[in-house]
Amino acid sequence: MAKIITIGREFGSGGREIGKRLSDKLGIAYYDNEIITEIAKRTKLAEGYVEHVMENSPSNLIPITIGRTFYMGVDPVMEQNNAIYREQSLLVKELADKSDCVIVGRSADYILREKHPLRLFIYADLESRMARCRKRAPEQEHFTDKELKRHILDVDKKRGKYYQFFTGQNWGERLNYDLCINTSNADIEEVVDAIAKLAK
Amino acid sequence: MAKIITIGREFGSGGREIGKRLSDKLGIAYYDNEIITEIAKRTKLAEGYVEHVMENSPSNLIPITIGRTFYMGVDPVMEQNNAIYREQSLLVKELADKSDCVIVGRSADYILREKHPLRLFIYADLESRMARCRKRAPEQEHFTDKELKRHILDVDKKRGKYYQFFTGQNWGERLNYDLCINTSNADIEEVVDAIAKLAK
Repeated sequence: MAKIITIGREFGSGGREIGKRLSDKLGIAYYDNEIITEIAKRTKLAEGYVEHVMENSPSNLIPITIGRTFYMGVDPVMEQNNAIYREQSLLVKELADKSDCVIVGRSADYILREKHPLRLFIYADLESRMARCRKRAPEQEHFTDKELKRHILDVDKKRGKYYQFFTGQNWGERLNYDLCINTSNADIEEVVDAIAKLAK
Repeated sequence: MAKIITIGREFGSGGREIGKRLSDKLGIAYYDNEIITEIAKRTKLAEGYVEHVMENSPSNLIPITIGRTFYMGVDPVMEQNNAIYREQSLLVKELADKSDCVIVGRSADYILREKHPLRLFIYADLESRMARCRKRAPEQEHFTDKELKRHILDVDKKRGKYYQFFTGQNWGERLNYDLCINTSNADIEEVVDAIAKLAK
């Protein structure tokens, strides 16, 4: 049976680290930002813009037209968003067809639902997410605690809206996942070992 | 380090089965209904009444006086409930002090919070919970699907209210648990193996 693992994650919860380690441990492919790069190529939109769309709620988007012309009567922003989501769906399906893999984010749990992937959701309390952010992104060290907290909650809110907009499901709702993992006090290595056992 | 595992669970999700198998696998004690029996002994209340209190929201309770006298000015129902919760707290702590163990329900995750137990929450979609109920309790076979569904949701609602009343936390809220496990499509054996790995 194919081993497809999808990871939804709260910002700063360590979902990406778990995904990376899991793919190493299981010897399978890992996809995260590679997906954005590829969608940008296919849609001929700038990579930064694709990322912006995928990390924002659809209603917050600003139209940026790159390599495209628009006709009257069509909402260019929604057209672009839909194009991005369409490519995202196709690409995620292609990747899952190609080989066993771990896919972080990108609504992959929903896109691949017919393949019954192992769907993980990684979360943690705000304190440990702030600590993780401080550790991994020193460029944000000018953020006060209050600003960092606001930033974390803001990213989550946008991820949730994007996910809900395109899937009709609530992001982070436990029934959409097979396993929800709290990394607040967890030993990531042990968590990865346990999931690997479950995925085998 | 002590191995204490607490299990919160939606009705019909297989939490008890996971708990029992986990205790067998790890070779540690298992407590579930034993706790009710012991509390009944200690409070001199009937076992059925203790169970009724612990599976109901505090406001729904009917006063039943057994082996107790009440003074004017004291709400006898609340007094009994508090006595039960007090004994529940003491007993759960005693059990956890005595040896490694798995404790199902009884707000043990909250009562033992200072011991940092591995806190599991077991859940599943309604369909598979109905199927599990039908399988394990043939005496309920006169229930129509609609009645069974109502019964399941009713038990959960009461568990949630009891938990919230005494802990001030929301039952089932992911941040109160280390791991939330969806048993809808899970192989219980594999799940138990993975948790055992995490608990070791």
